[in-house]
Amino acid sequence: MDFINEASETVAGAAADIKAWEAAHLEKVFVPFYSSADIRISSNKAAVVDTNIFPAGFNNLSPEFRDRLGLLIRDAISRKYPGTGKLLVIPEIHARNPHYWENVKTLEEVLRARGFEVKVGFVDDEIKRGAVSVAASGGGTVEVVKAARDGAKISAAGFVPDVVLLNNDFSNDCPTILRDIEQPVLPPVEIGWHSRRKDVHFEFYNSLAREAAAVCKIDPAIISIETRLIEDVDFDESEDRERVALVADEMAGTVPAGPLLFVKSNNGTYGMSVVAVSGGDAIRNMNAENRKKMRAGKSKKPSGQIVIQEGVETVLRTDEGMPAEPVLYMVETEVAGAFYRTNSKKSAAENLNSSGMEFRQFPDCVKDLRNIPELLSLCAKIAALAAGYEIEKVMLEGGCE
Amino acid sequence: MDFINEASETVAGAAADIKAWEAAHLEKVFVPFYSSADIRISSNKAAVVDTNIFPAGFNNLSPEFRDRLGLLIRDAISRKYPGTGKLLVIPEIHARNPHYWENVKTLEEVLRARGFEVKVGFVDDEIKRGAVSVAASGGGTVEVVKAARDGAKISAAGFVPDVVLLNNDFSNDCPTILRDIEQPVLPPVEIGWHSRRKDVHFEFYNSLAREAAAVCKIDPAIISIETRLIEDVDFDESEDRERVALVADEMAGTVPAGPLLFVKSNNGTYGMSVVAVSGGDAIRNMNAENRKKMRAGKSKKPSGQIVIQEGVETVLRTDEGMPAEPVLYMVETEVAGAFYRTNSKKSAAENLNSSGMEFRQFPDCVKDLRNIPELLSLCAKIAALAAGYEIEKVMLEGGCE
Repeated sequence: MDFINEASETVAGAAADIKAWEAAHLEKVFVPFYSSADIRISSNKAAVVDTNIFPAGFNNLSPEFRDRLGLLIRDAISRKYPGTGKLLVIPEIHARNPHYWENVKTLEEVLRARGFEVKVGFVDDEIKRGAVSVAASGGGTVEVVKAARDGAKISAAGFVPDVVLLNNDFSNDCPTILRDIEQPVLPPVEIGWHSRRKDVHFEFYNSLAREAAAVCKIDPAIISIETRLIEDVDFDESEDRERVALVADEMAGTVPAGPLLFVKSNNGTYGMSVVAVSGGDAIRNMNAENRKKMRAGKSKKPSGQIVIQEGVETVLRTDEGMPAEPVLYMVETEVAGAFYRTNSKKSAAENLNSSGMEFRQFPDCVKDLRNIPELLSLCAKIAALAAGYEIEKVMLEGGCE
Repeated sequence: MDFINEASETVAGAAADIKAWEAAHLEKVFVPFYSSADIRISSNKAAVVDTNIFPAGFNNLSPEFRDRLGLLIRDAISRKYPGTGKLLVIPEIHARNPHYWENVKTLEEVLRARGFEVKVGFVDDEIKRGAVSVAASGGGTVEVVKAARDGAKISAAGFVPDVVLLNNDFSNDCPTILRDIEQPVLPPVEIGWHSRRKDVHFEFYNSLAREAAAVCKIDPAIISIETRLIEDVDFDESEDRERVALVADEMAGTVPAGPLLFVKSNNGTYGMSVVAVSGGDAIRNMNAENRKKMRAGKSKKPSGQIVIQEGVETVLRTDEGMPAEPVLYMVETEVAGAFYRTNSKKSAAENLNSSGMEFRQFPDCVKDLRNIPELLSLCAKIAALAAGYEIEKVMLEGGCE
């Protein structure tokens, strides 16, 4: 952890300059209301490998972080939309994972604890009932009421929210009911994974990482993550695999961390479609199972576009020896909290966001990090800003259209 | 610390009820914008012994607590006065203690870090210069500019603040320049120590403590502190001393913690005029030095009114063995942070707020408490509410008039 501590000291020493740099970007771009960043830390690198604009997992935050989260949310909403008292949270109504619903329940509780009146609503016309009660993993339930549009306003069972908070990335479609309504929708509905592209995100991320590194005088390689787009890929076609393999070989030769690479679908989320490879040959000789994985994105579309991303081996270990990676939660560009994703079935060189994953509270399970190091906060800040520029690009290109 | 942990668990278990109880009070009373509470912890009691509505000592808070402080302040100001961007901080311009100025500097930095434009101003007509530069103990300086009234608005060197933040208890007088101005003044100027009375504060405190204890089903004695007022006392008069001694004897007989009592001036602050006694005889036989102390309040007025307060022996020790007492910092009714007051020249049964005192960051110096226990947060919350009722009473009685 010497590397993290040293780099964090350098970053902390440049706090005022980083603040000015951040402020200059915030003049130019709207960052998402909230986000989470998966961070991998190796012996010489700490970089974001995934940024979620509709974070789930709030239930994995410690009571202290939940408290801070609520405070940051209220502060952000009060500044932007003074007088806001009523919030409508829109979760992924079709999610079946009770942990996801525990997350929604936690978000609801965090908001209520800060004095907001909160209802959880769904906007799916195919559900005919007026309310649905869903079991959460903690033993409780979440009441979700049907939200409907009345002219330019959305309401749910007579509850007219001041602000709508999305916890649903609408992977498949862009619900018209939430478009052009009078109430602010946070984050904007146009920016679900249906319109996000990893190559776009990481191009902004790496560009901002270079700027931030220059500001605080650290090696930009420390916080960058090489990410290459390859289009029109069908892994069942050997010539497509060869195109991908050539890029992988090229990256394996230049990536200082060694030959670890991750192949991901350029869209999609939830840790699917992520395959670790050690170079081009692993792609040339990809078996049927892995080929299938590459099109097993959330929406089951053939991937088409893929990215190859520099792999970062995680050096963090839980007390029991499981590999761990921190997930940082942000409200705008401020760190609200963190937890660890661990995985008893995976090695430090693999994607932990897969079968066998568990969540542990920060800082309890990893002795090395007692506080969130400045270097990690900076990475998550860069990711939030990058997501802001990414949203802007999506919006300029027409959003859901 | 078993007592604190057990009671804190009980308090935590009643969090929702305490929240509702607090909310009901917040409907009825305005709490001060910020405050600090000195808390003494014995083997069976944790109680506030002093509540400051114009807290100094922000420089003793850790970086994490400063961060939280800034967030709480911005959140509170954004909700109450949306759009506030400019703050004028009014410190005690005549303070000579460079640690006090380090406190002002810290407050300035905390506010700037949250995006506020900040100026520090003075309102004393006797200072003819337009600006004063004061050295802070950390090596820097604080620039204090003259604030003047232009009609119903106050401004400082062309800077027109949206909100005025007082860090000055105006012990001696009530500056008319700050009265009835258009900008909100936080906390209200009417509530300096010139109009505060300890007996009033602790009557509200104990009454609220009984309510809170009933809500979370703990023994009210745990968080109460017996406080008795005796009026028209001149310690040079033996019959006045006898009146005080009789009350002390009565209290020494009923106070379960033993015969430790503190005699304090009913007004005044800054730890002066606090004498520890073990019963009536100590007052009957009070020597000239202690008699003098009793009139050595900040304003050097003869004390007139005094309180005798149940003494709470502190059981907290720094790693080096010095007695320590936590000081909690509040924004409205939320804990922003804490530090320890320690004193190498005093015993656990004495007032630590006196010559020899030092400040240490929480939780570093006392191993027993890693987080701020719920019981202490509850005490500080009660003190903030009590200060709110106290302010209301002062205002109803005419404030500065």
